[in-house]
Amino acid sequence: MDFTEKKVSSETVYKGKILNLRVDDVELPNGKITKREVVEHAGAVAVVPLDEKNELLLVRQYRYPVGKMLLEVPAGKLEKGEDPEACAVRELAEETGCRAKDMKLLFSFYSTPGFSNEKMYVYLARGLTYLGEHPDEDEFIEASPVPLQAALDLIDRGEICDAKSIIGILAVKREMDK
Amino acid sequence: MDFTEKKVSSETVYKGKILNLRVDDVELPNGKITKREVVEHAGAVAVVPLDEKNELLLVRQYRYPVGKMLLEVPAGKLEKGEDPEACAVRELAEETGCRAKDMKLLFSFYSTPGFSNEKMYVYLARGLTYLGEHPDEDEFIEASPVPLQAALDLIDRGEICDAKSIIGILAVKREMDK
Repeated sequence: MDFTEKKVSSETVYKGKILNLRVDDVELPNGKITKREVVEHAGAVAVVPLDEKNELLLVRQYRYPVGKMLLEVPAGKLEKGEDPEACAVRELAEETGCRAKDMKLLFSFYSTPGFSNEKMYVYLARGLTYLGEHPDEDEFIEASPVPLQAALDLIDRGEICDAKSIIGILAVKREMDK
Repeated sequence: MDFTEKKVSSETVYKGKILNLRVDDVELPNGKITKREVVEHAGAVAVVPLDEKNELLLVRQYRYPVGKMLLEVPAGKLEKGEDPEACAVRELAEETGCRAKDMKLLFSFYSTPGFSNEKMYVYLARGLTYLGEHPDEDEFIEASPVPLQAALDLIDRGEICDAKSIIGILAVKREMDK
C-alpha cells in the first residue's frame, strides 16, 4: 500500500549552524492536508574505539540541550560533502587523540525519523595508536577507557543513555560474541 | 571538571505541533560565548511487542522527514503530562490493536542530545491479546509479525534503520539470551 505523503508547500523557518527547520504542508493518502515539521541535519558519525584489552574509549562532555554531562562514544557531525569514514577518522583523532588501523561500519540509522532527517553512521575502530589530542579549542571533552562489560553495565544502569552510544556498544558486544 | 555551559540569553524561534526551536547564547567553560540550537520535544515511547512464538509486531509507515517507508517498533510521542507507561499502552493499542499483560521498561535514552532534549522510553510488551485496531483516522500504519531472528537480520541489512527500533530489538535479544 502506498502511504506516501506529498509535499504541497514548504517554508524554511530557520537556517542555523547545525540545523535548519522547515515546515511543510503535505497531502496524506486520504487527501487531507496536514503540517510536517522537519529538522534538517547534515548527518553524523559515531565511533566505538575498542583496544586490544577490550576497553572502549569513551568521552564525557556537557550536552546543553539535555542540561547535563553525558558519557558517550566519540561522535561528530559531517562537514558538507564529507565522506562518513573520513569524518569518523577525524572525530576519533579530535576527541581521543587516536588513529585506528581498522575502521568498520557497523550500522547506519536515523536518530529520530518522526521529525528529523539526521542519519548517523556508527563505526567500530580497532588497532588504535595514540597520537596525542588535538581538540578544537572550544570543545570540552574528556576521554577515558572503559572495559566493554563495564560499558554494558553503565547502559543497564542508565548512565550511558544516548542512542548512538547504546547502539554502538550493543553492536560491538554482538560482534565480539559471533 | 566542570564543563557546564551557562545560558546567557534565549530566543524561541518557533513553537509548533510536535517541537519548538530555541536558540540560546551560552557561556563556555573558557568564558567564550557561543550559540546552541535546541529542538524541544515532549519525549516519546517505543514498544517492542513480543508474542509467545517469539515474533515481534512491527509497523510500517511513511516517514516524511526521511522520505520513505520505514519498518519500526510501535511508537509515539508523550501527551502533555502523560506517564510513559500509559503512553506505551495507548500507542500499542492504536498501532497494533493489542493489549499487553506485561509492560517492562528496557531503557530510556536521548535520541540526539547534540541538538534536542527528546527522551525516549523503550518497553518490552509481553502477554499480548488482540483487541482490534483503533488507529487515528489520519495515521497510516500497517502492523505485521516478524520473527525475532528475522528482525535482527533486517537490522544487519539496514532495513530496520531507526534508533529506537534497533535499540529495542537488540535489547530484547539480550533479554532472551540471559
